[in-house]
Amino acid sequence: MARRRRSPSTRRSPLAPAWRRLVGRPLRAREASSEEITPVEGLSALSLDALTSVAYGPEAILVVLAAAGTTALGLVLPITVAIVVLLAILVVSYRQVIDAYPSGGGAYAVSRANLGARVSLVAAAALVVDYTLTVAVSIAAGVGSLTSAFPALAGSTVPLCLAILAVVTVLNLRGLGEAARAFLLPTMVFIVGLLSVIAVGLVHPLGRGEPPRGHPLVATQGLEAIGVVLVLKAFAAGLTALTGVEAIANGVPLFRPPRAKRAKRTELLLGVILGAMLLGLAVLARRFAIEPRSGQTVLSQVMAVAVGRQWAYYVMSVVITVVLGLAANTSFGGLPVLASLLSRDNHLPHLFALRGDRQVFANGIWALAILAAALLIAVDGNTNSLIPLFAVGVFTGFTLAQAGLVVHWWRTRPGGWRRRAVINAGGAVVTGISTGVLLVTKFAEGAWVVAVAVPAFVLLFIRIGAYYERAGRALRLGEIPARPHPRGSMVVVPVVSLSRLTRHAISEALSISDQVEAVTVVTADEPGGEERIQELQQAWERWSCGVPLTVLRTEYASVAGPVVRHIDRLRRRHHDQIVVLIPVAVPRQLRYRLLHNHLDLVLSAALRTRTDVVVARVPLEFDAGET
Amino acid sequence: MARRRRSPSTRRSPLAPAWRRLVGRPLRAREASSEEITPVEGLSALSLDALTSVAYGPEAILVVLAAAGTTALGLVLPITVAIVVLLAILVVSYRQVIDAYPSGGGAYAVSRANLGARVSLVAAAALVVDYTLTVAVSIAAGVGSLTSAFPALAGSTVPLCLAILAVVTVLNLRGLGEAARAFLLPTMVFIVGLLSVIAVGLVHPLGRGEPPRGHPLVATQGLEAIGVVLVLKAFAAGLTALTGVEAIANGVPLFRPPRAKRAKRTELLLGVILGAMLLGLAVLARRFAIEPRSGQTVLSQVMAVAVGRQWAYYVMSVVITVVLGLAANTSFGGLPVLASLLSRDNHLPHLFALRGDRQVFANGIWALAILAAALLIAVDGNTNSLIPLFAVGVFTGFTLAQAGLVVHWWRTRPGGWRRRAVINAGGAVVTGISTGVLLVTKFAEGAWVVAVAVPAFVLLFIRIGAYYERAGRALRLGEIPARPHPRGSMVVVPVVSLSRLTRHAISEALSISDQVEAVTVVTADEPGGEERIQELQQAWERWSCGVPLTVLRTEYASVAGPVVRHIDRLRRRHHDQIVVLIPVAVPRQLRYRLLHNHLDLVLSAALRTRTDVVVARVPLEFDAGET
Repeated sequence: MARRRRSPSTRRSPLAPAWRRLVGRPLRAREASSEEITPVEGLSALSLDALTSVAYGPEAILVVLAAAGTTALGLVLPITVAIVVLLAILVVSYRQVIDAYPSGGGAYAVSRANLGARVSLVAAAALVVDYTLTVAVSIAAGVGSLTSAFPALAGSTVPLCLAILAVVTVLNLRGLGEAARAFLLPTMVFIVGLLSVIAVGLVHPLGRGEPPRGHPLVATQGLEAIGVVLVLKAFAAGLTALTGVEAIANGVPLFRPPRAKRAKRTELLLGVILGAMLLGLAVLARRFAIEPRSGQTVLSQVMAVAVGRQWAYYVMSVVITVVLGLAANTSFGGLPVLASLLSRDNHLPHLFALRGDRQVFANGIWALAILAAALLIAVDGNTNSLIPLFAVGVFTGFTLAQAGLVVHWWRTRPGGWRRRAVINAGGAVVTGISTGVLLVTKFAEGAWVVAVAVPAFVLLFIRIGAYYERAGRALRLGEIPARPHPRGSMVVVPVVSLSRLTRHAISEALSISDQVEAVTVVTADEPGGEERIQELQQAWERWSCGVPLTVLRTEYASVAGPVVRHIDRLRRRHHDQIVVLIPVAVPRQLRYRLLHNHLDLVLSAALRTRTDVVVARVPLEFDAGET
Repeated sequence: MARRRRSPSTRRSPLAPAWRRLVGRPLRAREASSEEITPVEGLSALSLDALTSVAYGPEAILVVLAAAGTTALGLVLPITVAIVVLLAILVVSYRQVIDAYPSGGGAYAVSRANLGARVSLVAAAALVVDYTLTVAVSIAAGVGSLTSAFPALAGSTVPLCLAILAVVTVLNLRGLGEAARAFLLPTMVFIVGLLSVIAVGLVHPLGRGEPPRGHPLVATQGLEAIGVVLVLKAFAAGLTALTGVEAIANGVPLFRPPRAKRAKRTELLLGVILGAMLLGLAVLARRFAIEPRSGQTVLSQVMAVAVGRQWAYYVMSVVITVVLGLAANTSFGGLPVLASLLSRDNHLPHLFALRGDRQVFANGIWALAILAAALLIAVDGNTNSLIPLFAVGVFTGFTLAQAGLVVHWWRTRPGGWRRRAVINAGGAVVTGISTGVLLVTKFAEGAWVVAVAVPAFVLLFIRIGAYYERAGRALRLGEIPARPHPRGSMVVVPVVSLSRLTRHAISEALSISDQVEAVTVVTADEPGGEERIQELQQAWERWSCGVPLTVLRTEYASVAGPVVRHIDRLRRRHHDQIVVLIPVAVPRQLRYRLLHNHLDLVLSAALRTRTDVVVARVPLEFDAGET
């Protein structure tokens, strides 16, 4: 039976079909952008980062307070109230951002438009750091929730983190739109479930009486003076609970029209739910006298006391892991788009602007996955090691976005612009102060990493931008060049023996130029080399193809060397463009590829960086049949 | 100041200089073969594998005997005598091999000439297995010697093994000749030192009285029946001490003339020294009542009792490690040459026949290093796990070489051929029986691996040979082909913008053909894409280079896809050869390479397996200057 012959254009690497199945078929631009979302879907696609902060925000506050003694733990409630107030300010401010930039107003875009290119690079650098940390923190906290419920898994924290990261990466390589729908169910279960747990805890004033496990994470002493520094530190730690509230404003174009209206509704929804959760958890933590413990997160302790270690507890623990894993998605939706914008503005390599078959910026997704994996391995998957680094970048972005918006209102002056400007100015001041508090109180514990990384990224962006400008001048980009200057061309074809492949290559060479030369290399130590050459020369003469055959003899072992030196000699004699055509035998069966073309291997490598020669491979496909 | 401009032909990857320093400058064929060796140098270059067998051969015997009780340990002496007799037979036989094949008579060459191609492949497969095991066993035993003397190192057995393997690999990539000289000193120290230690032990009848450390490796019971099976097993284990005596016969061409005479002298020297060492160690093991122990090799125990744990003991321990590491060199001299012969006979991919700059078969060296590393990791660097696998391959080779030589004498019938044939026939019978004993007694303990691997390699060789034959027919190799069939050519140049690079590429394209078409891709979702295209079209018209510009629009994200589909359309319309010239900007500074040519990246990948299109990169080097 005749086997069906695939057309050459569909031939792919052997791994291609499996990869295709994993990430899906190519999408048209239209298909990708048609996946528009509703406010509720917006919660799962853009707000999970913010909502899931409840898994590490309250704990971060308690870790700081516990160090100052049991009494200090009582401060959790007033500090949480302060943070919820800040949340309200942010929600109001960002609803204004949505009005002002309905096409998506990330901190980078807003500050670029209003505060100038240099400042916008600071915002961009802060966002890059922030996105990477969000992925790492979310996944680490997710695994923390899992190991709290199932202590047997505690030994494999890092592998679990990397596995979740891999799943999220693949989901994002498929594209965000589909993902948003898949995230809807766990998001709803998480929101409804956690609010229910809090409600049960509030009704059942003493809880279901589950004794805490593990030993206290921080040695709590007795009474101690409660100073301003302590309050500030705890407040700064709690700010991590607010990360992610900006994501909706960035993602306005993803919503179904009327976009701005739906996005603003989502932002409000997020503020209400997140505020309720934070306050509820703070009340319960106080009432149950929760303190940070090893091997169990604060959220897990609250749930265990509120509803007991039964099915609801385990279901919620797994759901929290899932949504935290999915929260990392917010960053995967953000960083690649940011990288593509930076790349278009010449501040990152242009390859970040390339879309893949699925319309996503695959290179940005890979870059983020690699950065996050490195971070997770570095801190051994421990959430509390990442917390001091977190939020500095986020709040820098908040501050720049608000400040940019004040300038925007001042410049455009729409109706009620004064009120709007005041609101954003207030937001800028509050978030600016918060950024300062974060940086000062957390500097020694890890914020210095961010203080180094952000300027380093800014410097990188500036240097890449300067390089592209120089390269553009050197290449006279955009100028009308001189007329093209065609020369004759001289084609060199390296051959080993006489075969169909040789004929194919010589035919191609003659198609390109009248001046064709075949060359063959014989090394001094090749057994039977001279006989082979004599035979080849005789056969070549009998063939009489009209192309001369030059024999290159060498005392060295490399076969690429003599060809390169021969080309150098030709270049000195001829003015013509030299084209090297390397014949390549391509057996139809993939597994035989390794058996051919060792000459191509060494020659392509040797000529790869030659800028004065055009190198082309002339492939001939053939079928050697099966045994 | 004008900076010196390197010529394009000398430009290399940034790692090239460091690598060059590691493996040395390219050698001429003459230089490499001028490094001829004397008999004493022959001991270090070709016989270390055999000489260093004393580090694991006697121990292998004792491990078997210890299992049968303390009395059985007394059998070590008679068994060693039997093995030394076998050694004498092998030395006499192999001196005849040298006479018969002065150009180097490995088991593969001898059996190919006399026993036919199929049998020779069995020899080749046995040799491949043998070479790999020699490397692994030698290095593992070397590290064993080191950890015996310095127990603190016992935890890092595998890393130590891999480090030694890396050093040996690099030495061999530099070339064998130089290495032989470097090996001379440690070899001499080893031979003289070990013979001295044995002499001291024999003179000092009770030794220096060092108590043994570690616990017995095998639980020794009291008296037990000593059966034939036990004796055979111990004998088979001891055969590992004879591995490597064939290497001199393989390496005859390396000697200084008169080659055969010097090689025979070396073979005799090896036999005498190895026999003396084996007998001496057996006598001492008996006298000192040595038994196998954990954490300390038998050889190390003998030395410790003979001379005490003082400087001489430590020096010898380190020297033994060094020479065992160097013994692996025997295989690195052997396998790559064998692979190149197999490759020339079409039984391995042709790339194993390529010599590197240093005249060595670098691909074979790499393949051996990778196989040995895998083996060392698999057995955790434990010598005793490898011993049962070892020697089966070696003795298969011995048997085939001797049998082949009998046929050789029968065919050529020189003076005294009857006597010679009888000697080799005797050798063949004895080694044949030994092979059988090895396979039967060690089958369950690991010899089955070899019994599987050898046929698997034979099958691989046969299948590769059959494939090359089919491919040769399919490509009509060696036939005079039909006349070349030149066509017109049509050149497609993908462009993004107008620049010097564009002009360069269009010039090259016009040098090759009159039919040139520039194409540019705009994706549906590219921000400002339409404006970019309009500008480009206007500029293109003003340039009036004589080449039309085609705009390819796509709804998909991939920029490679539209170009590929456009080429497909062209191929349906034209009979001409299609050449794709991809313009490539090459900044002079390496670190900027990543910033350019993302188009080249995706297009080259997409067109890589197209056999109907000639793809060439047109590089233009430019200098964007420094900041």
